[in-house]
Amino acid sequence: MKAIAYSALLLSTSLFAAEQKISQMYDASFLQKVATLRDHALNDPLAYDITESLTTEVGPRLGGSENDAKAVAWGEAKFKALGFDRVTLEPATFQRWVRGKERAEILAPFPQPLAITALGKSIPTPKEGITGEVVHFANLADLEAADPNVVKGKITFISNRMSRQKDGSGYGQAVGARGTAAQVTAAKGGIGTVIRSIGTDNDRLPHTGAMKHDHNVATVPAAALSNPDADLLMNMLKRDQPVTLKYTLGSYFGDDYTSHNVIGDIVGTERPDEYIVIGCHLDSWDLGTGAIDDASGCGITMATAKLIKQHIGPLKRTIRVILWANEEYGLAGAKAYHEAHKHELKQHILGGESDFGAGAIYALGTRVDEHAMPLVDEMMKLLNPLGITYANNQSSSAPDLIPLRAAGMAVFSLKQDGTDYFDYHHTANDTLDKIDPKNLAQNVAAWVVVTALAANTAQDFGFGLTDKK
Amino acid sequence: MKAIAYSALLLSTSLFAAEQKISQMYDASFLQKVATLRDHALNDPLAYDITESLTTEVGPRLGGSENDAKAVAWGEAKFKALGFDRVTLEPATFQRWVRGKERAEILAPFPQPLAITALGKSIPTPKEGITGEVVHFANLADLEAADPNVVKGKITFISNRMSRQKDGSGYGQAVGARGTAAQVTAAKGGIGTVIRSIGTDNDRLPHTGAMKHDHNVATVPAAALSNPDADLLMNMLKRDQPVTLKYTLGSYFGDDYTSHNVIGDIVGTERPDEYIVIGCHLDSWDLGTGAIDDASGCGITMATAKLIKQHIGPLKRTIRVILWANEEYGLAGAKAYHEAHKHELKQHILGGESDFGAGAIYALGTRVDEHAMPLVDEMMKLLNPLGITYANNQSSSAPDLIPLRAAGMAVFSLKQDGTDYFDYHHTANDTLDKIDPKNLAQNVAAWVVVTALAANTAQDFGFGLTDKK
Repeated sequence: MKAIAYSALLLSTSLFAAEQKISQMYDASFLQKVATLRDHALNDPLAYDITESLTTEVGPRLGGSENDAKAVAWGEAKFKALGFDRVTLEPATFQRWVRGKERAEILAPFPQPLAITALGKSIPTPKEGITGEVVHFANLADLEAADPNVVKGKITFISNRMSRQKDGSGYGQAVGARGTAAQVTAAKGGIGTVIRSIGTDNDRLPHTGAMKHDHNVATVPAAALSNPDADLLMNMLKRDQPVTLKYTLGSYFGDDYTSHNVIGDIVGTERPDEYIVIGCHLDSWDLGTGAIDDASGCGITMATAKLIKQHIGPLKRTIRVILWANEEYGLAGAKAYHEAHKHELKQHILGGESDFGAGAIYALGTRVDEHAMPLVDEMMKLLNPLGITYANNQSSSAPDLIPLRAAGMAVFSLKQDGTDYFDYHHTANDTLDKIDPKNLAQNVAAWVVVTALAANTAQDFGFGLTDKK
Repeated sequence: MKAIAYSALLLSTSLFAAEQKISQMYDASFLQKVATLRDHALNDPLAYDITESLTTEVGPRLGGSENDAKAVAWGEAKFKALGFDRVTLEPATFQRWVRGKERAEILAPFPQPLAITALGKSIPTPKEGITGEVVHFANLADLEAADPNVVKGKITFISNRMSRQKDGSGYGQAVGARGTAAQVTAAKGGIGTVIRSIGTDNDRLPHTGAMKHDHNVATVPAAALSNPDADLLMNMLKRDQPVTLKYTLGSYFGDDYTSHNVIGDIVGTERPDEYIVIGCHLDSWDLGTGAIDDASGCGITMATAKLIKQHIGPLKRTIRVILWANEEYGLAGAKAYHEAHKHELKQHILGGESDFGAGAIYALGTRVDEHAMPLVDEMMKLLNPLGITYANNQSSSAPDLIPLRAAGMAVFSLKQDGTDYFDYHHTANDTLDKIDPKNLAQNVAAWVVVTALAANTAQDFGFGLTDKK
């Protein structure tokens, strides 16, 4: 079937031939069932209920924290309650990072408290804190270019502000400061670094997030100020007087911890050892309840598989929902899964992760072999009524699929409207109220289409793919 | 002049007569100067600069705190720098209230930290905190009606949510819970009370604010949860299992403290002992930098007087700008001023306070004697081009004018669009970024009109007025 489809595509690009192709791919009654379930999903509360359950009954669940194990237990119980055919826990071990207490204040010229939070993987300050003069840089490049004499003995402050974009692309432009400001500061003799939060809001709630850390590379205690606090600091700096900042971070690396990927399978009827991998990450940062990052992704993908089984029944391939362990500061679950399944990577037919909040989906992106594009076209026919267009075949999917994608697995992205996502991302404000149940349900409708069509065919999407084709 | 104006109004209501009246009130060149200054003010940055200065150089300034004295010093220096003719500090003494540390967590069934803040004037919990089962009430009335057996030994929780309204009227409907939940709970044998924040936002930043306190009336430690935390607690309560809350408040009453009303006068040329009283309150809650509550009011009214002096010159009456002390938990400055000036109350011709943020002004309200309505009409002619309409003659002005208003002083309100005001009010989010400089400048334009016209006439607005006419 695979070979036939492939050569047919090569032989003809006429619309008629393509239509013929499609009719051979799926049974009309199956497509009708998918369309019916898609429409049903638009009003189904299951994804919201799952999201509410995880945020209410577990809440914050930083990798390695007490709630990490509670989240794993929650995931296992929830899969079973939803009637998944097989629930598996797979270990993922990593060095724990703990936040501890944190506080900051301007000591001079105008004493004021500041809202601050440690960047993930920051080293602690001494117990009495760090006190130093602030030296300002507009962005990471300016810090990188700075004369070490300007930085030496000082606390660096990078003030670049993330821009608001539907696709979240402002994040990539700004987040470099979070990643490497500490190492660059240390290399130049600075004693600490604070950055403007990587976020689009104006709330007094700083955004955490992982920074680069290597126990063998010099670093400094690193933290983020909320956007209003960064503004305040800028206004003080404008007055051309030295500004003295004091901050204390209690964060530290602890011992090794073993968490688990929680895997729920709806086992395939004809090709049970071929997996359509969907999912979310189960961990969250500790400041909020991890609603949009990433309980909503768990709600969307767990509901997708459950609804397919309930309303259509098991399909040819196995639908595998993975709740990934400790995405936030190490992709620990992603790495462990790749290692544990390295002898069967080719059985991972197509993968997607929902990890960008709960906004409505507006586009499908893929990274599949060209021979599978008729399958994508078929998906698009069922996605179009949801207001979803096709993006391109350059999708990178989401973080937890990086190891599988690097190994060559085909991936897809159902692109969500992320206009507001970075208002709340990695803050205490990441709570259930930020989720619109209608948008969440629209996500499920779209995931049902892609997942069901990928699972109910014998055709592959290619393997051994690379990002630049 | 007074008598003539009054009888003329009685004798004729024709438009022509009214116009004649107006032409007798003010010199055309004066009205032209006011109009010119009004238009200039729309682009003048002074109010914003003052607001930025107070929030940056002082920041949080709770009555009785270390920053209270800094704010007073700031006010005195700022009035002098702006060229006010006379700057006076008048003492206002009150018992200090101090926040201390505060934290909350759900212990069962689903342990989670909660964002909490003590209500102003709450008593402390024991050092180890209060732990108890939560008993929920939809609103204060339900708590008041509750059987004491339901409340005894428990922590009460009132979940009413404030509604969003342009005029802020949702506040009055919801804020009763903040005022008396603690006393009602104590009277029924409860051990503590937490309320949903009186605010319209969904941010994880609880709203503080004063509650009723009488050292002779039983009370309990009282605090507010942020709206997302109140939602979370509601979701736990829905599960029909006992919910155990623990919270710790370090708040306490301290010794007596003497702060000051800071008074800046632009002295009148013909009637220097007659005052047009405008101003703001200088104190703020401690969680934010007190930008919209009420640095913006200081910026608006200080700029108003300064610009009038600079662009028009001193007027017949004295323009008195009062930066009121400790409005937030006691109206201490308002009471002290009333007491100190009780022998000259009638010299307070008209009063207004800007204490509702920095939204654009949409209406003028007054509480003046009917004989002064032609003066109000004259103000309206100059306010109309700013998009401002006349509300009614039932204005209650703002909190710090309560004692003077109760004594019979005429008052006005320049009503601001408060749609977003209660998103930030009394939270850490009350910071400079919430202020739109254009809206702030529009406020100054309106205050210039009302202040200048009230100050440059010999006509009164009535005295001995009561609220129900």
